[in-house]
Amino acid sequence: MGRWEPGARERLERAALELFIEDGYERTTVAEIAARAGVTERTFFRYFTDKREVLFGGGHELEDFLVRLVAAAPASVAPIEAIAGALDMAAIEIFAERQAFARQRQTVISSNPDLQERELLKLASLTAALAAALRDRGASELGASLAAESGVAVLKTAFTQWVSEDNAKDLSEIIVKTFAELKAVVAVA
Amino acid sequence: MGRWEPGARERLERAALELFIEDGYERTTVAEIAARAGVTERTFFRYFTDKREVLFGGGHELEDFLVRLVAAAPASVAPIEAIAGALDMAAIEIFAERQAFARQRQTVISSNPDLQERELLKLASLTAALAAALRDRGASELGASLAAESGVAVLKTAFTQWVSEDNAKDLSEIIVKTFAELKAVVAVA
Repeated sequence: MGRWEPGARERLERAALELFIEDGYERTTVAEIAARAGVTERTFFRYFTDKREVLFGGGHELEDFLVRLVAAAPASVAPIEAIAGALDMAAIEIFAERQAFARQRQTVISSNPDLQERELLKLASLTAALAAALRDRGASELGASLAAESGVAVLKTAFTQWVSEDNAKDLSEIIVKTFAELKAVVAVA
Repeated sequence: MGRWEPGARERLERAALELFIEDGYERTTVAEIAARAGVTERTFFRYFTDKREVLFGGGHELEDFLVRLVAAAPASVAPIEAIAGALDMAAIEIFAERQAFARQRQTVISSNPDLQERELLKLASLTAALAAALRDRGASELGASLAAESGVAVLKTAFTQWVSEDNAKDLSEIIVKTFAELKAVVAVA
């Protein structure tokens, strides 16, 4: 193992995203990412298993974070409230500082069908995990599925807006507004 | 071209699903499907481009059907109502007669991760197509996305229930109940 390198993970992420955008995801190699970040390839592999993990490694973290919060919500909290509360915390704790990364990541993913598929699979996994966490809290099969689907739909839609706006608001605020809009949209069903 | 064979498509579908369940999707060949259905391989290829299309060919039909109905809904109809109306028609016109097929299809897809991914991609494509149809009718970007996401979430959830119940109700009825449940779930957000 090499020595600890302060900020290496962030430098590697930044270097990877820059190269993915400049040269394309497919053509970028781990060697190039490491060189741009000023670290060895060995250091890269201490943080990521491959270049795809630079884009998707955070998915696990997000899923674990949200599931933990949903599981910890008081019993009196309705399924959709538990989800909304967890998403709000994620917006603040995980995403607030990461808008530049999230934006560049979105640019890379939009340009590559394989990465888009991967993103869909991650969201499907997140939906299933949240539904399971709600069921564990005693929600009905159907109620849990619908609350999880709704929450992930809100996250997806709010996120798209957040990363695409030039002068983007707070993600947390966008999520709250998107939940309100979902309520209005569904109310007339 | 061979002669027209009455019921060949249905026989091929039935034979394919039987073989997928008996021997596994991966191991089943087009030759076996054709033999079981009592037709030539050439006849198989008149109906399907490959064995996967037996499972997913209907996806295009469903997407076209739903988009056409959403586009044709009167201007006074809200986005979610247009979606709900279209799903109800699909339940009656497309799915009502096809429960046995839908069930076997679900069994096959559940047993194969690649087919599950394919199914997710089809649903994502359906969501995008419905959102586009709603935008064309004048719905807002956000309203269209959320109505489409909600509609597909209802379809997915209702469908899962419909194919998994031993003594399944009408899909149309399950869809109506699922929309009502979604409304109740989201109302407390």
